[in-house]
Amino acid sequence: MKEFTKSYGLNEIALIPTNKLIDPELVDISTTIAGLKLEVPVIGSAMDSVVSPKTAGLLGKQGALGILNLEGVQTRYEDPEEVLHKIASVSKEDYVSLMQEIYKEEVKEHLVIKRIQEIKKHGVITAVSSTPQSASRLGPMASEAGADLFLIQSTVVSNKFQTTSEEKNLNLKEFCKSMPIPVMVGNTTTYEVTYDLIQTGIKAIFVGIGPGAACTTRGVLGIGVPMATAIVECAAARDKYFEETGNYVSLIADGGIVNSGDICKALACGADAVMIGSPIAKAKEAPGKGFHWGMATPNAVLPRGARIKVGTIASLEEIFHGPSKSDDGSQNFAGAIQTCFATLGVQNVKEMHDVNVTIAPALQTEGKIYQQAQSLGMYK
Amino acid sequence: MKEFTKSYGLNEIALIPTNKLIDPELVDISTTIAGLKLEVPVIGSAMDSVVSPKTAGLLGKQGALGILNLEGVQTRYEDPEEVLHKIASVSKEDYVSLMQEIYKEEVKEHLVIKRIQEIKKHGVITAVSSTPQSASRLGPMASEAGADLFLIQSTVVSNKFQTTSEEKNLNLKEFCKSMPIPVMVGNTTTYEVTYDLIQTGIKAIFVGIGPGAACTTRGVLGIGVPMATAIVECAAARDKYFEETGNYVSLIADGGIVNSGDICKALACGADAVMIGSPIAKAKEAPGKGFHWGMATPNAVLPRGARIKVGTIASLEEIFHGPSKSDDGSQNFAGAIQTCFATLGVQNVKEMHDVNVTIAPALQTEGKIYQQAQSLGMYK
Amino acid sequence: MKEFTKSYGLNEIALIPTNKLIDPELVDISTTIAGLKLEVPVIGSAMDSVVSPKTAGLLGKQGALGILNLEGVQTRYEDPEEVLHKIASVSKEDYVSLMQEIYKEEVKEHLVIKRIQEIKKHGVITAVSSTPQSASRLGPMASEAGADLFLIQSTVVSNKFQTTSEEKNLNLKEFCKSMPIPVMVGNTTTYEVTYDLIQTGIKAIFVGIGPGAACTTRGVLGIGVPMATAIVECAAARDKYFEETGNYVSLIADGGIVNSGDICKALACGADAVMIGSPIAKAKEAPGKGFHWGMATPNAVLPRGARIKVGTIASLEEIFHGPSKSDDGSQNFAGAIQTCFATLGVQNVKEMHDVNVTIAPALQTEGKIYQQAQSLGMYK
Amino acid sequence: MKEFTKSYGLNEIALIPTNKLIDPELVDISTTIAGLKLEVPVIGSAMDSVVSPKTAGLLGKQGALGILNLEGVQTRYEDPEEVLHKIASVSKEDYVSLMQEIYKEEVKEHLVIKRIQEIKKHGVITAVSSTPQSASRLGPMASEAGADLFLIQSTVVSNKFQTTSEEKNLNLKEFCKSMPIPVMVGNTTTYEVTYDLIQTGIKAIFVGIGPGAACTTRGVLGIGVPMATAIVECAAARDKYFEETGNYVSLIADGGIVNSGDICKALACGADAVMIGSPIAKAKEAPGKGFHWGMATPNAVLPRGARIKVGTIASLEEIFHGPSKSDDGSQNFAGAIQTCFATLGVQNVKEMHDVNVTIAPALQTEGKIYQQAQSLGMYK
Repeated sequence: MKEFTKSYGLNEIALIPTNKLIDPELVDISTTIAGLKLEVPVIGSAMDSVVSPKTAGLLGKQGALGILNLEGVQTRYEDPEEVLHKIASVSKEDYVSLMQEIYKEEVKEHLVIKRIQEIKKHGVITAVSSTPQSASRLGPMASEAGADLFLIQSTVVSNKFQTTSEEKNLNLKEFCKSMPIPVMVGNTTTYEVTYDLIQTGIKAIFVGIGPGAACTTRGVLGIGVPMATAIVECAAARDKYFEETGNYVSLIADGGIVNSGDICKALACGADAVMIGSPIAKAKEAPGKGFHWGMATPNAVLPRGARIKVGTIASLEEIFHGPSKSDDGSQNFAGAIQTCFATLGVQNVKEMHDVNVTIAPALQTEGKIYQQAQSLGMYK
Repeated sequence: MKEFTKSYGLNEIALIPTNKLIDPELVDISTTIAGLKLEVPVIGSAMDSVVSPKTAGLLGKQGALGILNLEGVQTRYEDPEEVLHKIASVSKEDYVSLMQEIYKEEVKEHLVIKRIQEIKKHGVITAVSSTPQSASRLGPMASEAGADLFLIQSTVVSNKFQTTSEEKNLNLKEFCKSMPIPVMVGNTTTYEVTYDLIQTGIKAIFVGIGPGAACTTRGVLGIGVPMATAIVECAAARDKYFEETGNYVSLIADGGIVNSGDICKALACGADAVMIGSPIAKAKEAPGKGFHWGMATPNAVLPRGARIKVGTIASLEEIFHGPSKSDDGSQNFAGAIQTCFATLGVQNVKEMHDVNVTIAPALQTEGKIYQQAQSLGMYK
Repeated sequence: MKEFTKSYGLNEIALIPTNKLIDPELVDISTTIAGLKLEVPVIGSAMDSVVSPKTAGLLGKQGALGILNLEGVQTRYEDPEEVLHKIASVSKEDYVSLMQEIYKEEVKEHLVIKRIQEIKKHGVITAVSSTPQSASRLGPMASEAGADLFLIQSTVVSNKFQTTSEEKNLNLKEFCKSMPIPVMVGNTTTYEVTYDLIQTGIKAIFVGIGPGAACTTRGVLGIGVPMATAIVECAAARDKYFEETGNYVSLIADGGIVNSGDICKALACGADAVMIGSPIAKAKEAPGKGFHWGMATPNAVLPRGARIKVGTIASLEEIFHGPSKSDDGSQNFAGAIQTCFATLGVQNVKEMHDVNVTIAPALQTEGKIYQQAQSLGMYK
Repeated sequence: MKEFTKSYGLNEIALIPTNKLIDPELVDISTTIAGLKLEVPVIGSAMDSVVSPKTAGLLGKQGALGILNLEGVQTRYEDPEEVLHKIASVSKEDYVSLMQEIYKEEVKEHLVIKRIQEIKKHGVITAVSSTPQSASRLGPMASEAGADLFLIQSTVVSNKFQTTSEEKNLNLKEFCKSMPIPVMVGNTTTYEVTYDLIQTGIKAIFVGIGPGAACTTRGVLGIGVPMATAIVECAAARDKYFEETGNYVSLIADGGIVNSGDICKALACGADAVMIGSPIAKAKEAPGKGFHWGMATPNAVLPRGARIKVGTIASLEEIFHGPSKSDDGSQNFAGAIQTCFATLGVQNVKEMHDVNVTIAPALQTEGKIYQQAQSLGMYK
């Protein structure tokens, strides 16, 4: 009889202190992704509401990284601001139709080059992304335009793609070999796929399917593995490959990470960094103007990814380095990660991978219920 | 000391991608039920709010199937539209009494024949259902009128019915032998009952007790097995029988399936198709006019099955083949199933039965809570 | 290191159909409690809001049983109606103080006798209850006045009561021997205590601590064992004693039973009958006038047990025998139990003890969420 | 592959009665903390909203203990009343900024001495607390001023603190040796840290990280171990040390304890006493004036700890000794603990450590849902 495995989400776990403590000043929260150093182990999602050339620059200045989606509104429109304004102001009823309309416009080569150059002007790491279908076209273009990192991202990726169309079939191994810059790939959730993919020469793997705030993949497709378990599984594959070859492939947890506590938990499960969308969409400088939406929405026949009003809470600098004016883990990510490391007695991201984790069901103390009710506007 | 087993619902599981991907164009989502091919593995419930002769025709044209309840309003009233209008407009307080009143009218032979002919005119598979009590009377009648499939459906069925009344006792084996068209039977939830029933010559078994949106069996009777576990158990019996005899009996998951993600999960647990009520009741063409109700409601002494306002969201064509204007899995079922298969690297329904399934408790990320609160009108 | 056991509540389990079905007409839902036959295996709680002499008579006529609390308002006041009216109309703020005031009035011998005679006039089984502290005084009084059954009930009972006060210490064995009528005792939740208690000569044991609708014992004392596990444990002790001695002691599940589904589940766990409060407090004839409250409330220093507005939904006859105008398991208990037995293929209460039970977490299908939200007035 | 352990909160457990009962009059609920006897095993948290010199005196008179935070508003301001009034009346938006502003004022030596003398005037045990950073300065000062107990408290403590700054590094063993009064330390959650810490000569250990009503550590840092498991783990270390050395170190459960039921559960898990904040902040005499807030809030760069409106429900005397006007476990703690002990048949706190505990998921009976909804103002 078919048996079910058991998986856990980040909201179901908590980190357990050890018998050590470290002075926060001795803690190093930096990470290395595909050979490039980030001072803060956080990456902005390749989504229209999160990363524009301007926010990519600002994220870089925070010590973080923003990845620009080369197939979003930025490379389809000369004036993306106008389009983003439309998305943020359309009614809920007309939202999906508008998105489908907006995405009928094609991606333009000169805009791809222009946006990459706009990021580079800020003097930061320049990372861009495309779907597997467009990678052969956009990859070389991005590399030539001076990008530092190239991410191939799809809901689910695999090294074993079965198709009759020669054109659709991306040979990842050859693609990696042909690209002068590091190639990163996502998303996956399992040991087996991770182990397969990292054989192809990729430098980083993105982990997470279904759990994002603006992602409705689980409702539409039934697919999804809770994040804590997904990271643990994929990290085991990364560690095995490292033992066998001495090559360390970076692992980025992507989806469902909403506060600094989640970032710390993802690192403890084995991630080298996290990718976040909605927490950055809440920044004053975010292109989403107080809204956040998924990138599967424009899909003409099967839209997934809701538009959520996330509001505007603080500047990107406050969100990454404080001072925090809030107490819900939405601001001063760097300070929170540093405090967490110090509290757990770990000195760096690598040591975080060894922290003890416990399954700790959602706390339902009086205070938590009040807070949740308040945050939903049910109680004042 | 008595021991409890453990069961899981579809909302508690998620599907895990493999290390393969398939081009959606290579995916075949068709299924074969009792020897008849459906292009889409979805069946409309034999309920007054879901399937009328007209919607049976429309469902057939979508590549799906609608089963007409031969003991509903369609065969009791010359003009069922008027009756359906009354049900949709009665107050909550008077609903149960009205239903009990409406169902006092008898089922009429000439209407049974008329409704079957109405479906046949659409040139689609014609499937009808009755209770075990009426099967001996309505079965031959339906077959003669040209029906292609006959479903005997009751909350719970068994091949070992103990009674003193000769008339009530349906001998399933003899009934199957006597019927010129395939007989399907439901519902059950266990290995043992499934294995018993398929020995009688039935061609399809319906699985699911208690979990439907408009079903209150669990509250009233305490009976019910969560769907994911029920499908896995019954599928194991089907597979055992197939190994022993070479005869493959179709398994249809029935109850509690509310979006395309649920459909995909049911197939992954071992179903060959799913039967759905409320998702079809939301169609513009649905007989329920924005409402959905259970068929146990009219029970004069022990009504079960609430009337739920489900609203009207799209045409049947949009619900089955898109384009979807929503992102919650309520539209473009065929597209979602196709995308799911492609994403999981499976080519057809049979291969779906081998997909890995994980227990993944309800996701409570920020976005999901917002969505849930919004859908309940608690938050705008 | 201390280890925790695992317990389950009735809302966490569901009953699994077998491979048999029985004609409802062949089902016998009667039970025998302490040698007396009840046509319906349901007992009204010995609470002021549930059983008065009048409702005891009405419950008896339904084939059920009502137990009168000999230490409630009925035996403290000549005109309890007036007092009950006050309780039902006092403000929430003044409720506890009022209850403490009302209960300062003493229990009067002539009223004890009078109330018992009032019940007897209805020609039904006459059952009364007292606390262990008052049992030596009220037991013989009740027996002489013609009561048929005597229940000693306290939050928790034990046969090993440690005290320095001779007067407080009830010797249960001697008490049972001295009483001409059967003695019943409660409540407990464990194998060990049940096994101890039934050695003393009691004829029925009441199971359940903490889970009742109007009971706040768990919040105040931290004590409580979820009902499904409690019944299973205590039933095992009853069965062991029966095997050893041939004497069958009745087991009544008491607390947290809110609909007919719960009644069926309790029987499947091993109960011979259930005791219910809030479902009867909803009857037109209930003394609580639309309210229900716990009997620990009047405790002068440590009140437990909230007053809940339960409303008035139907007559006692409708609640016990239908016809039901609702579909939530709150009406036609007898019909629901009969249908459940038939559906599970069991012929009587004894056979119910062998039904398979599964752990089935609270169903969160769309329909259920709507219903729950509606019932809380959050959604219209 | 990394494995997760499993932890439980107090809201997930319940206590199981044994086969004994004890007369409440024979029960002794007193406890000994660091050699000093408390008549009631409850300690008021070292938080501005909970313990002022005045409430420390009142708590002592109840047989309980209040610990004054030597780094809160009491030792920074001559007139703390005015500051507390500001905190209680500031808008939600300006709360964090105000707290950060208020805490810029320094702790003043003469106020430390003055506040300790104010408590001593009440003739009660005088207990004070500081952070590890200030312990070397405030410890001797407090001891000289006549304090009886000194608590070093931080979110997480450890005996292995790694730093380059000599000044920050508290040598706990030397500190304990140098202090003429008993030293208590907290908080921790694990066996290992507890076992390490009690080697240093401390007399009591505080257990609990993350679960408090006004604590948002888990959201911000991802750290936290549910309380029931934390107590069990740390109690095992205490017991091991006692077996080895004959020295008994007191264990105080601190955080997430909201009613008398929680207190009883914490004792049953192995605590010798509990520390509570919000339940005392609800007292008429509480310094928080109807509000309760965490002590990590003032942190300039990473505020944690929300301000919650808890309201004012009763006097401290009523909260500790009744009579209770409520039935939710928020009043008459002493009476509830006594009743619990009697009901479980245990005579004192030590015997409570052996009570059986069961995992009993949150009860979701009708009554509980109503109560919860009511308490959140969602339902009237």
